[in-house]
Amino acid sequence: MIIVMKQGAERADVEGVVKRVEELGYKVHLSRGEARTIIGIIGADEHLMSQGSFEVMDGVEKTMRVMQPYKLASRDFSHEDTVIDVRGVAIGGPKIVVMAGPCSVESREMIIETAHMIKAAGATILRGGAFKPRSSPYSFQGLGEAGLRFLAEAREATGLPIITEVMSTDDIELVGEYTDIFQVGARNTQNYSLLKALGKVRKPVFLKRGISGKIEELLMSAEYILSGGNMQVMLCERGIRTYETATRNTFDINAIPLLKELSHLPVVSDPAHGTGMWNLVGPIAKAAVAAGTDALMIEVHPDPKRAWSDGAQSLTPEKFAKLMNELKPVAAAVGREI
Amino acid sequence: MIIVMKQGAERADVEGVVKRVEELGYKVHLSRGEARTIIGIIGADEHLMSQGSFEVMDGVEKTMRVMQPYKLASRDFSHEDTVIDVRGVAIGGPKIVVMAGPCSVESREMIIETAHMIKAAGATILRGGAFKPRSSPYSFQGLGEAGLRFLAEAREATGLPIITEVMSTDDIELVGEYTDIFQVGARNTQNYSLLKALGKVRKPVFLKRGISGKIEELLMSAEYILSGGNMQVMLCERGIRTYETATRNTFDINAIPLLKELSHLPVVSDPAHGTGMWNLVGPIAKAAVAAGTDALMIEVHPDPKRAWSDGAQSLTPEKFAKLMNELKPVAAAVGREI
Amino acid sequence: MIIVMKQGAERADVEGVVKRVEELGYKVHLSRGEARTIIGIIGADEHLMSQGSFEVMDGVEKTMRVMQPYKLASRDFSHEDTVIDVRGVAIGGPKIVVMAGPCSVESREMIIETAHMIKAAGATILRGGAFKPRSSPYSFQGLGEAGLRFLAEAREATGLPIITEVMSTDDIELVGEYTDIFQVGARNTQNYSLLKALGKVRKPVFLKRGISGKIEELLMSAEYILSGGNMQVMLCERGIRTYETATRNTFDINAIPLLKELSHLPVVSDPAHGTGMWNLVGPIAKAAVAAGTDALMIEVHPDPKRAWSDGAQSLTPEKFAKLMNELKPVAAAVGREI
Amino acid sequence: MIIVMKQGAERADVEGVVKRVEELGYKVHLSRGEARTIIGIIGADEHLMSQGSFEVMDGVEKTMRVMQPYKLASRDFSHEDTVIDVRGVAIGGPKIVVMAGPCSVESREMIIETAHMIKAAGATILRGGAFKPRSSPYSFQGLGEAGLRFLAEAREATGLPIITEVMSTDDIELVGEYTDIFQVGARNTQNYSLLKALGKVRKPVFLKRGISGKIEELLMSAEYILSGGNMQVMLCERGIRTYETATRNTFDINAIPLLKELSHLPVVSDPAHGTGMWNLVGPIAKAAVAAGTDALMIEVHPDPKRAWSDGAQSLTPEKFAKLMNELKPVAAAVGREI
Repeated sequence: MIIVMKQGAERADVEGVVKRVEELGYKVHLSRGEARTIIGIIGADEHLMSQGSFEVMDGVEKTMRVMQPYKLASRDFSHEDTVIDVRGVAIGGPKIVVMAGPCSVESREMIIETAHMIKAAGATILRGGAFKPRSSPYSFQGLGEAGLRFLAEAREATGLPIITEVMSTDDIELVGEYTDIFQVGARNTQNYSLLKALGKVRKPVFLKRGISGKIEELLMSAEYILSGGNMQVMLCERGIRTYETATRNTFDINAIPLLKELSHLPVVSDPAHGTGMWNLVGPIAKAAVAAGTDALMIEVHPDPKRAWSDGAQSLTPEKFAKLMNELKPVAAAVGREI
Repeated sequence: MIIVMKQGAERADVEGVVKRVEELGYKVHLSRGEARTIIGIIGADEHLMSQGSFEVMDGVEKTMRVMQPYKLASRDFSHEDTVIDVRGVAIGGPKIVVMAGPCSVESREMIIETAHMIKAAGATILRGGAFKPRSSPYSFQGLGEAGLRFLAEAREATGLPIITEVMSTDDIELVGEYTDIFQVGARNTQNYSLLKALGKVRKPVFLKRGISGKIEELLMSAEYILSGGNMQVMLCERGIRTYETATRNTFDINAIPLLKELSHLPVVSDPAHGTGMWNLVGPIAKAAVAAGTDALMIEVHPDPKRAWSDGAQSLTPEKFAKLMNELKPVAAAVGREI
Repeated sequence: MIIVMKQGAERADVEGVVKRVEELGYKVHLSRGEARTIIGIIGADEHLMSQGSFEVMDGVEKTMRVMQPYKLASRDFSHEDTVIDVRGVAIGGPKIVVMAGPCSVESREMIIETAHMIKAAGATILRGGAFKPRSSPYSFQGLGEAGLRFLAEAREATGLPIITEVMSTDDIELVGEYTDIFQVGARNTQNYSLLKALGKVRKPVFLKRGISGKIEELLMSAEYILSGGNMQVMLCERGIRTYETATRNTFDINAIPLLKELSHLPVVSDPAHGTGMWNLVGPIAKAAVAAGTDALMIEVHPDPKRAWSDGAQSLTPEKFAKLMNELKPVAAAVGREI
Repeated sequence: MIIVMKQGAERADVEGVVKRVEELGYKVHLSRGEARTIIGIIGADEHLMSQGSFEVMDGVEKTMRVMQPYKLASRDFSHEDTVIDVRGVAIGGPKIVVMAGPCSVESREMIIETAHMIKAAGATILRGGAFKPRSSPYSFQGLGEAGLRFLAEAREATGLPIITEVMSTDDIELVGEYTDIFQVGARNTQNYSLLKALGKVRKPVFLKRGISGKIEELLMSAEYILSGGNMQVMLCERGIRTYETATRNTFDINAIPLLKELSHLPVVSDPAHGTGMWNLVGPIAKAAVAAGTDALMIEVHPDPKRAWSDGAQSLTPEKFAKLMNELKPVAAAVGREI
């Protein structure tokens, strides 16, 4: 960490900071420039240090981190890409994985029918929500355990592994009895109680970026799970909140290559939430593949007009099958397969 | 709700939408303009309807809500201000309430000492964190139950009611044994499992606006608690995330008068998180009072340089006492007392 | 336009609004719902109407536009894509056009050398700044007219048409003597004096989206030029300002397919400004092509370390040539050529 | 400036950076930590240096500025507050100045009538737009020179100095013949051609923060004017663009005390644009005074319902007079007068 003293900071101020750093057990590296004194803290486990406690000291103008605040999630920790195996489906390897299915599980028939359709189109993981985080308490909240059971039946019927959301520490055990991957939604990315509990499970975690989460925060949230002992974490870009209202969210395409550079964890892209408009899902899915995503999550509903949630951003099975075909040459163009 | 059809939408498209609305049990009001057809849905419990399911229909351009998606939280529901009584302290009444104390409870002595100091300066509620949501898993996570116990001892010593954060449904019972007010932090504003559970408790809830939460979302999150049966909710403006990096957050002063207009619930302002800089806490606290806040939450630490968290935005007890004196004439200037 | 009256608005309020609408020469369509009265304004040139003047009237809760506020820029105005011809290079047609070159023209030799290099790699338009909008008055401000002369010499030497920025109405005549395309930078997107003046020139205009410009505002700025009589406008996505600080800007990939849907004008993508990091330029350029961009603008500098501006986001000629090769299969995958 | 090398950067990379810094004429201060090497550039006119040119060098991870990029605008340059005298009205002194008037000058009678009304209520400067930057080319664009003439007549009739917007370098001479203060609007804050030209005039400049301008950018734009020789610049907070749609803009109250700390220039607050809603203008005006603003700009229109622009955020003369009375005790509460 680097501490920049104010112009004209007194000798006693500088000494105060130096003394405090040394009390904490770190070594100091002092540079007296013409205009300002700069204090470097050397040999430090910087991710363990607090900037704020120095910023409040007399004579300090600002502090700057030299190193990233995460460790296990960083590319420095593992130069090799992490590949997560889910019942034989490898996420993070050369083949781009497609997870598809409805926003909510609405009935046994509906989810089994959809599972067959997306499998026929080439998807290899089935998604579907049983516990739904809805902004209104008056909206459909998901079928709960029945939804989980229907998902498991769809898995049996098709052989597709399943992914579904867990919203609370209370539900981890129940959801874990059914799901192959735990999904953490964008409103829970910084629900640290949930993240800590998921650090203790033995199943992969699919971690969505917060609604206005920073890339660094996403990696810090992954760090919570990783530091708990669960190394099977995938990171999902799902659009961020910006001032632009023409689309529901702004899909942050930059995040894909940047996350691949900063971290060894697999990166998934969710163009449905990233746009909120079904007619943009196709172009953005192609863009995500071209930019290097490891997987896609795509909402597919047999009859979007009658969907109980997120119909506006769901594809019909026909449109999904067409998109899968269009994605193949794009994947090939960047040396991948889909 | 209003549904705007595309220019040149076909007759069959319009009929399809009308049929769907009628299936759902609502009445239709049709306006055929020169350029477009507009479909109004009448007599509806609009907060129960989904815009997305119409937006996906053939020929539909966009939909617009006429009414607010919340009900119990709205000013229409209660023209009278809700006043919450906490052991004799009235929040939402003519007197502006000041909640003060450290970010984290660090020890028994520290919290009792701070409680005496803030009481002497005029604060009437003691705050302090026992369970701390920290962005890094390597940072201090709070003293847990010991912290709660120390807070209760500080209450006994001073008579000040206490407020502390609850991060998980698992902890509600434990935290509820000690606290007078449940605080929901900015990262949990849309943790719906937690909100639902807090709808069932019999103690007031202090609900922070999300890190980049919309005003409407804050009111919807309040609606979760209210619709669960707990009508004692206060709303807290604590700064929002914007592109501006000169301050930690952007304190949304507009939210104060707007929330008072839209809702009957008390509004609290948190200038420490709203700025992230202790030297801005004073001016922003004054501004919040001038704009009509019902209460202030202010971080006070006996030695901010040695705080285990959020030192950079905490006041010393001396600065806090000085600020309390400066706030008095501002409150008087807008017809309030502090 | 639709005007929603407040719950419990008085009869006189409704009549007041109706009267005002009729005074303005429009017809009214009244819907009295159970909860609220809604007033539709029919047959209107809606882009000529002001929402604000109704919002201030007694009893009005809010107003909503039914139609887009732009006309000439909209897809409704021309279902056929606009193709702009620049000395034989067609922008907006099946072939994706690449404009490349340095941020600033630094010398005669440098721009001619770069022009040869980018031409060899497959670019068909040369870019380079002679008048530079710099955030600091102490930074290099461009070579001015000498820069324009050098650009023209590079055009002569290579046959590549040129594009350069115009910052002020004062400079239009001078810049117009040299350039083939007028570039309007992100800080001037809403410089209406400049836009009006460019509506009168007979050369194409390359209009960048504002630093935090909305898609609708970009189209409204285009409307200024189009309504002045110049129909040769191309729209450039160059990243928007968001809260994310890991990249300089957030490239709004959603804007590409959305602009193609809303407008007939050609869409250009600028991945250098959209990311601010040269190592992200390649993946984002590929993503832009996959998402449907008509053209790319890419910063290329013979020696980025010594660039007088924007070195951090410039490619070397070698990296640029490699990228051009990698873009070919991506373009082919979406049915285009590059 | 501080340059942080990558973990494992090669000796040659470090030497390359050192050589480059020395070539530029600066001295190097090298710190080799366990994890990384850090290069400090000492004794530098840091505001003259470019971060980007170092960030692109081999082995460099990131660079950090130590000093602010502006100089003449900074508090370091002048510890004393700048007070600007406009025909006897002192802006930046103990008395808070109120500038009021309509968004647009609509007629001779209207502006003179408004001038008398705002003067009676206690305003001391008259505002009114003659050249209007409108987002639509089809909206009223201002009366132009006639508007300037009417403003001058209103000044003669009331003795109030006037302020009006200049949108283009072309108009500076004309506007300067009439106005007492040149206003630069939020869409022109980074119109550097205009700022440079205003650095040469001998009249005060009122500089609005950009629609999503950073505080640092506002100060850099002021630096353009100051470095041109015109030291009479006032800075205006007018709300910033955020994701929040409940209000037109988010008034950044934090900016007021922060600007006062960072700069010696007077700070003006514009609650009408900062909220977009006339019913929020009062509370936000009070908040701005409580937070330390030096002046207020308030839109007043004799009949907002019939305003040609910005009616929704304008006060009637009656409401304005009432607000002026309410502001007096707030100003007194913070030791000012109004």
